[in-house]
Amino acid sequence: MPRFFMAGTNVLGGMAIIRGRDAEHVRVLRLRPGEDMIICDGQGTDYKCRLVSADKEQVEAEVIEVVPCPAEPNIKVTVLCGLPKGDKTDYIIQKCVEAGACEIMFFSSDRCVARPENPEKKLERWQRIAEEAAKQSGRGIIPQVSWAGDFAAALDVAVKKELRLFMYETGEREALNTVLEANRTAADAAIITGPEGGFAPFEADLARVCGLHICSMGERILRCETAPVVALTATMYATGNL
Amino acid sequence: MPRFFMAGTNVLGGMAIIRGRDAEHVRVLRLRPGEDMIICDGQGTDYKCRLVSADKEQVEAEVIEVVPCPAEPNIKVTVLCGLPKGDKTDYIIQKCVEAGACEIMFFSSDRCVARPENPEKKLERWQRIAEEAAKQSGRGIIPQVSWAGDFAAALDVAVKKELRLFMYETGEREALNTVLEANRTAADAAIITGPEGGFAPFEADLARVCGLHICSMGERILRCETAPVVALTATMYATGNL
Repeated sequence: MPRFFMAGTNVLGGMAIIRGRDAEHVRVLRLRPGEDMIICDGQGTDYKCRLVSADKEQVEAEVIEVVPCPAEPNIKVTVLCGLPKGDKTDYIIQKCVEAGACEIMFFSSDRCVARPENPEKKLERWQRIAEEAAKQSGRGIIPQVSWAGDFAAALDVAVKKELRLFMYETGEREALNTVLEANRTAADAAIITGPEGGFAPFEADLARVCGLHICSMGERILRCETAPVVALTATMYATGNL
Repeated sequence: MPRFFMAGTNVLGGMAIIRGRDAEHVRVLRLRPGEDMIICDGQGTDYKCRLVSADKEQVEAEVIEVVPCPAEPNIKVTVLCGLPKGDKTDYIIQKCVEAGACEIMFFSSDRCVARPENPEKKLERWQRIAEEAAKQSGRGIIPQVSWAGDFAAALDVAVKKELRLFMYETGEREALNTVLEANRTAADAAIITGPEGGFAPFEADLARVCGLHICSMGERILRCETAPVVALTATMYATGNL
């Protein structure tokens, strides 16, 4: 069934009025009066609607049912990644949105090779990738993509979450599945992964001191753009969201 | 520690003799006598070696320890994907090798948009991607990439495995985690995922008749290049390989 996010939609007295780009989209899809579609409010709620009329500027649809979007996981996961080189950011955003992330943040750390002068400039493009992936995968929210700042700022985001995971390649670590099995009912989580060169030991020490679980994902070395997707998928699996 | 696969290596009387491209590689890495490296036989066994001498044509190293490669999962997973468009094959290969696949196969199905005249031609490139990913992620084998043929041929591969998973987007399905939790000790598995347009209902019916588990990965719709990686990661997680 076609899905739209509510930008430009008003729901009034059991009727949804769609204007702008989405109205155009309904027209392109050649939806006809009587056909059903889902309008999502971007906050996790789906409005199941039946098309009443559609012209170039405005679409009217009757609201039939209001339900929580079934695609939304019951754990809100913030994925925090050390800024990678090139377009790996795009890949991370697209795949993490598909896999169920609530929020994606990038940060700068000791071994980041990529050091953009102004990462905020990229936010618009990143957010557009998140929006497209959210629509395509049937999400009930458009996950926010943002720039956390430096490593300390990333830790500061993570410490506020119930489950705090820090992916690290060497030294004393807990197995990711041990940590996840003990935290299957967490309401929210942060997953921190490093840039191409991984984290410096002092960064892992800092994360440990801040109460994060220093986690291993086994003996295979994952690329910096693969690790967040794998860690997120494991989290979704362990919490019954896959 | 540097890792090499054994192409061009002979182990004789406790000494490893490396010739060809890998000997050149040792030279490029500027490894010195006394330094350690791992030579993997590509069958899941690691030879921990200490460099004795290296010149342009030949490297000699003493074998210190012979151990099973710790990066190899204890379940052999064959990932079978409906041939996608463009370079999504490359992405699937790279990520599935990192995530621990034993073997990756592509096949042609009813809704495949990509219909190469001669997919065998691509095998050399695909195999090279698998080899690079295996080296980079520290695998103990170089997973084989191959062309299965048509959908029936893919099913034929799957039915020989202990755990048989068929990812499908609609209709009556089992939750992937229910199936995985009941099969945590399987020795081998097949994961079948579809091309861009998914599977035709008759294909799902056929898979069901052949005894495959028709599985759901939740309500989020995954892209055809994301689904194999997510399903494989879930399998690795459930079987204690992550």
